[in-house]
Amino acid sequence: MLEKIGSFKFHIESYVCDFTEKATLPVICNFILDAASIHAQERGFGYEQISKDSVAWVLSRLTVEIYEYPGHNQDLTVETWIEGVNHFFTQRCFRFIDREGKTIGYARSIWAAINTATRRPIDIQAWRPDMLDFVESEKECPIEKMSKILPVEGVEPVMGYSVRYSDIDINKHMNSVKYIEHVINVFDLDIFKEKIIRKFEIVYLAEGGFGDKLKLYKQAVSDNEFLIDTKKGDDSICRGRIIWKTICQ
Amino acid sequence: MLEKIGSFKFHIESYVCDFTEKATLPVICNFILDAASIHAQERGFGYEQISKDSVAWVLSRLTVEIYEYPGHNQDLTVETWIEGVNHFFTQRCFRFIDREGKTIGYARSIWAAINTATRRPIDIQAWRPDMLDFVESEKECPIEKMSKILPVEGVEPVMGYSVRYSDIDINKHMNSVKYIEHVINVFDLDIFKEKIIRKFEIVYLAEGGFGDKLKLYKQAVSDNEFLIDTKKGDDSICRGRIIWKTICQ
Repeated sequence: MLEKIGSFKFHIESYVCDFTEKATLPVICNFILDAASIHAQERGFGYEQISKDSVAWVLSRLTVEIYEYPGHNQDLTVETWIEGVNHFFTQRCFRFIDREGKTIGYARSIWAAINTATRRPIDIQAWRPDMLDFVESEKECPIEKMSKILPVEGVEPVMGYSVRYSDIDINKHMNSVKYIEHVINVFDLDIFKEKIIRKFEIVYLAEGGFGDKLKLYKQAVSDNEFLIDTKKGDDSICRGRIIWKTICQ
Repeated sequence: MLEKIGSFKFHIESYVCDFTEKATLPVICNFILDAASIHAQERGFGYEQISKDSVAWVLSRLTVEIYEYPGHNQDLTVETWIEGVNHFFTQRCFRFIDREGKTIGYARSIWAAINTATRRPIDIQAWRPDMLDFVESEKECPIEKMSKILPVEGVEPVMGYSVRYSDIDINKHMNSVKYIEHVINVFDLDIFKEKIIRKFEIVYLAEGGFGDKLKLYKQAVSDNEFLIDTKKGDDSICRGRIIWKTICQ
């Protein structure tokens, strides 16, 4: 049987870097999703395998903590493992390791499995009891339990966008990472000169489709903490929390 | 001395695919720029090396022809070589090769070298005569000379966007490929179900900066040919031409 923990290496090409010459948060989220996808595929419950059962994985929540962003031309290793499988959710964790072997961050994600015809969640334990064999409950993922992200209300939108071709992913839906890219775009370029996104949380509440006109609402909780609510009309599509940290020079 | 032709392999991860399960045009353009960047770096005139002379490469024109887009989980090899070095421009060509060794496309690009302080072009032959040693004039790149792309006038804009964090690249300017992503976003999702972008041309005329509000103007030349002009106020920032081809089932 394959190891419970998978390890995947990514190279930081110039085109995945921002002007600070570091990989961006959305890029690291792409690596997370790619590592999860290959890890699942290798163990028999990947996208192509489960689509035969008319089932698809849907990302429900994601928390990413990064202490240091990997720089241009460096390698980033992403470890991933399944921390738990419940009836309606699985928890998958990630550890980020730089080229010198140092841990530079962690992530935790929660996934539902849905029937692709009905879009309703299915009982994962009943459908694939073999997934329990891959649960790795010993390995530490030092990320606090995700707390509720409240809606942002009573303010004007700070940004809007229509869902377009570049937002739609291989599964024909709005790409989970593209929401994050738009969420981060509410900030001015100047903040990225002084701070890094130390922690990012997002909860996905509904699916955006091609042509949807979405609006972003921002609320400052403190100097370094912001909530960003992405809405279609009055309904939240996803809600994010960003915690910034000043870069130590 | 290094070979004149460089060859670079890229893997088509799920997150670089659209809903047709193929790599998108902007992704292939990222590969093009990455191959060019590594090829130049290896030969002594890359980004970091020339920045010591306060010089930077600026992409002026790009034509991409693709017969078949590489699919999910496949490899794409990008060959690149310098076709010519004039006083104020270099021409760099690309060939795309699929996993079976078949040529699936070509690209041709024109680059200027600018002084990063004055933003004025410099005489490449006088500055770096050694680049002439790398000119490979024998290898075929069957792309016609780029024709002039006329401005689009007398129509309402079809789309607008503000330049945001995700548009800014490692060089602190609007990313050349992000312009292309926005250009393609003027099309409805349905066209991508029936057609591929068989040929894409873009000419860069001015630089977009953070916060700029850009507008896109579209003109149909025929059923399959479109001009898309990206303007800041009345001035073109870049002009593109797209030629679609119906997919043979």
